[in-house]
Amino acid sequence: MNMLEAAANAKKASIKLAASSTKVKNKALKNIAEVLVANKKMIVTANQLDLEQSEAEQLEAPLLKRLRFDEAKIDEVVAGIESLIKLDEPVGEVLLETELDDGLTLIKETCPIGVIGVIFESRPDALVQIASLCLKSGNAVMLKGGSEAKQTNKVLTELILRATDEAGIPSAWIYNLESRAEVSNMLDLDEYIDLIIPRGSNEFVRYIIEHSRIPVLGHADGICHGYIHRDADIKMAVDVAVDSKTQYVAVCNAMETLLVHRGIAKEFLPELVKAYAPFNVRIHGCEKTKMIIDCELATEEDWKTEYLDYEISIRIVDSMEDAIEHINTYGSGHTETIVTENAEKAKTFMMLVDSGNVFHNCSTRFSDGFRYGFGAEVGISTNKIHARGPVGLDGLLIYKYKLYGHGQIANDYAKGIKKFTHKRIK
Amino acid sequence: MNMLEAAANAKKASIKLAASSTKVKNKALKNIAEVLVANKKMIVTANQLDLEQSEAEQLEAPLLKRLRFDEAKIDEVVAGIESLIKLDEPVGEVLLETELDDGLTLIKETCPIGVIGVIFESRPDALVQIASLCLKSGNAVMLKGGSEAKQTNKVLTELILRATDEAGIPSAWIYNLESRAEVSNMLDLDEYIDLIIPRGSNEFVRYIIEHSRIPVLGHADGICHGYIHRDADIKMAVDVAVDSKTQYVAVCNAMETLLVHRGIAKEFLPELVKAYAPFNVRIHGCEKTKMIIDCELATEEDWKTEYLDYEISIRIVDSMEDAIEHINTYGSGHTETIVTENAEKAKTFMMLVDSGNVFHNCSTRFSDGFRYGFGAEVGISTNKIHARGPVGLDGLLIYKYKLYGHGQIANDYAKGIKKFTHKRIK
Repeated sequence: MNMLEAAANAKKASIKLAASSTKVKNKALKNIAEVLVANKKMIVTANQLDLEQSEAEQLEAPLLKRLRFDEAKIDEVVAGIESLIKLDEPVGEVLLETELDDGLTLIKETCPIGVIGVIFESRPDALVQIASLCLKSGNAVMLKGGSEAKQTNKVLTELILRATDEAGIPSAWIYNLESRAEVSNMLDLDEYIDLIIPRGSNEFVRYIIEHSRIPVLGHADGICHGYIHRDADIKMAVDVAVDSKTQYVAVCNAMETLLVHRGIAKEFLPELVKAYAPFNVRIHGCEKTKMIIDCELATEEDWKTEYLDYEISIRIVDSMEDAIEHINTYGSGHTETIVTENAEKAKTFMMLVDSGNVFHNCSTRFSDGFRYGFGAEVGISTNKIHARGPVGLDGLLIYKYKLYGHGQIANDYAKGIKKFTHKRIK
Repeated sequence: MNMLEAAANAKKASIKLAASSTKVKNKALKNIAEVLVANKKMIVTANQLDLEQSEAEQLEAPLLKRLRFDEAKIDEVVAGIESLIKLDEPVGEVLLETELDDGLTLIKETCPIGVIGVIFESRPDALVQIASLCLKSGNAVMLKGGSEAKQTNKVLTELILRATDEAGIPSAWIYNLESRAEVSNMLDLDEYIDLIIPRGSNEFVRYIIEHSRIPVLGHADGICHGYIHRDADIKMAVDVAVDSKTQYVAVCNAMETLLVHRGIAKEFLPELVKAYAPFNVRIHGCEKTKMIIDCELATEEDWKTEYLDYEISIRIVDSMEDAIEHINTYGSGHTETIVTENAEKAKTFMMLVDSGNVFHNCSTRFSDGFRYGFGAEVGISTNKIHARGPVGLDGLLIYKYKLYGHGQIANDYAKGIKKFTHKRIK
């Protein structure tokens, strides 16, 4: 089967899936959980093949760690599916109800988007998570995982398909892309695919955005900022700056640039240097920073860089307004935090910073679907439309308007024979 | 000032506008209403120039009618602004509130999108409507109206700017593009412009979608369908089919294709022909239709055609499922209606038809922001993400997550020292 056929079939399947009952969808999810538990050995064996191949190809240790899908990881994704089953039905939620006239009622109701294309990194657990979220929200899904996880992903897709077939979900609802060539094909299929969610490196996400007319949900850069205001509690500022930078450096919500008010820089920066020492954080500072602490001189390029490493750029600013201006110029709209004892200042900062996530007195690392309490997430979005920040089930839904009448025609209202009541019911 | 500067300034203005109070925004709206009333003569004179020029260029009568902006039309848009002032503040609405832990509170809050680029047809009232909606929702706007309305639009923008300046809104919040070349420039400015709303012909909207990486909100085609089920009330079916086709043929929510169940075709079609006769509706029918009524033979091309005229394609189908399949294949996701006495059948049809607006027993012509009770609208969207159907203020908003803490760091939760409570507050 070629991609065009697969996508056309997925579109047809998505229509049926959109009309599937909560009972059928939850039965399918339950079947997936069961089939994963019953076939742990087969999954682990396939994963072993991927691991061996990747070791032979000298894949880096952190990537190997993400690729590993052992019994404990299987139990984790199964627990995730079980909590997904318990969630309320996301489809058919009434968002608005208006009586337009006697016997003419308008209802705005959530519905699935249709067919979602997801391209994700080497973690096989992402496949199960994304497929379950799509199923619960009634969307068909075309998946392309990292090639390192090829064997594992193949087995997982087959098991999921077996489980959903048994529950009566149309088979074409899920399709596993096996080659990179198929990804480029997918990007052209805007007739069938409604949304692309790419997860991966900046370059990769940017490539997808530039090569497809299908709407893309996600983020390329994650250049997150901290701003230490002049009245910040020094200990809190150090704690937040350490956690934001060092808790996990390779992720999009790690802090890359720290802005410090000039009124607190002399007191704060030496303390920060002490706290960063055990982590060997490499510091690029502006000229004023260099006058206070020992560091490299930051260039214009540093303000635009997502290090994803134990490395940071620091700039001293004259005011909070300058900090906001810096963030709105160089930031990527992901996550920024302010440390200040002044709640009013924090409020202004959070209003004026144009990012999906704006924090007061806490670490940028909280910007995450699980930590927000959304359960699983399909990704984090820096888009300005549809869905922003960590995206769970809600980003996989849209709505339709349903109008129930008794033969009403518009001409009667245009001519003034009848009048709209526009009575809000919900 | 060139486009790049104008867009960069609009972006900066949008940040300040996003933080403007309800009082300031409503004062600005009030000023606009007053300045329009006080300068009626100037507006009408400018409009007169546009009308004379367009008459000299032999613009068609319906276009001339849309271009005319007289005192009555000014009163209408002023009334629109007054109702907009009365609407609740759309920015800062709390959509979700969760206590993540003691003293760590997450709030999901509506905020403006940023900078909106709007390209619209020759109606000058559209300029005032769109600008007011953007102002109320806190968005900066770059506007390009039809060149026929050049003088009118120039005067209107100047008056609006004077009114908003007085209220303290940053001047760069509104920019009037004067040439087509500026439109192509605008499409490249994805760094500054967050959303494009094109209104106009199919070809025009498709051109915009294909030539910009900025998200586009709107619709190209409006191929709306009616489906007459076998058990339909004949009189109601005829009324709905007449209104959907003939009430106003040049608009996107007019019906272009009628699907008829074979069990009712012989009874229904001759009645329809009688009802269409006074309007001289030209009928393209499938072979089965041609066996019942006198008409031209429809080709494959007819099912894909938006006539926007007294012209229709008719197809007889064997079942509701075939009607749904036809609609999901040839439709544009705009508006479809079913006429049936069977509420269960209607429910299934409305679930399986993949369109933004699905109706039961009423005319497709109700698919409209004013008729839905939304007040003014920026357009109708056939997108599958962000906003669908008639779009009012809601389509000009997105949200941001605000997290309020007291020095919390993620490491404490990662290490299990602290636990999330995830208590839903709102």
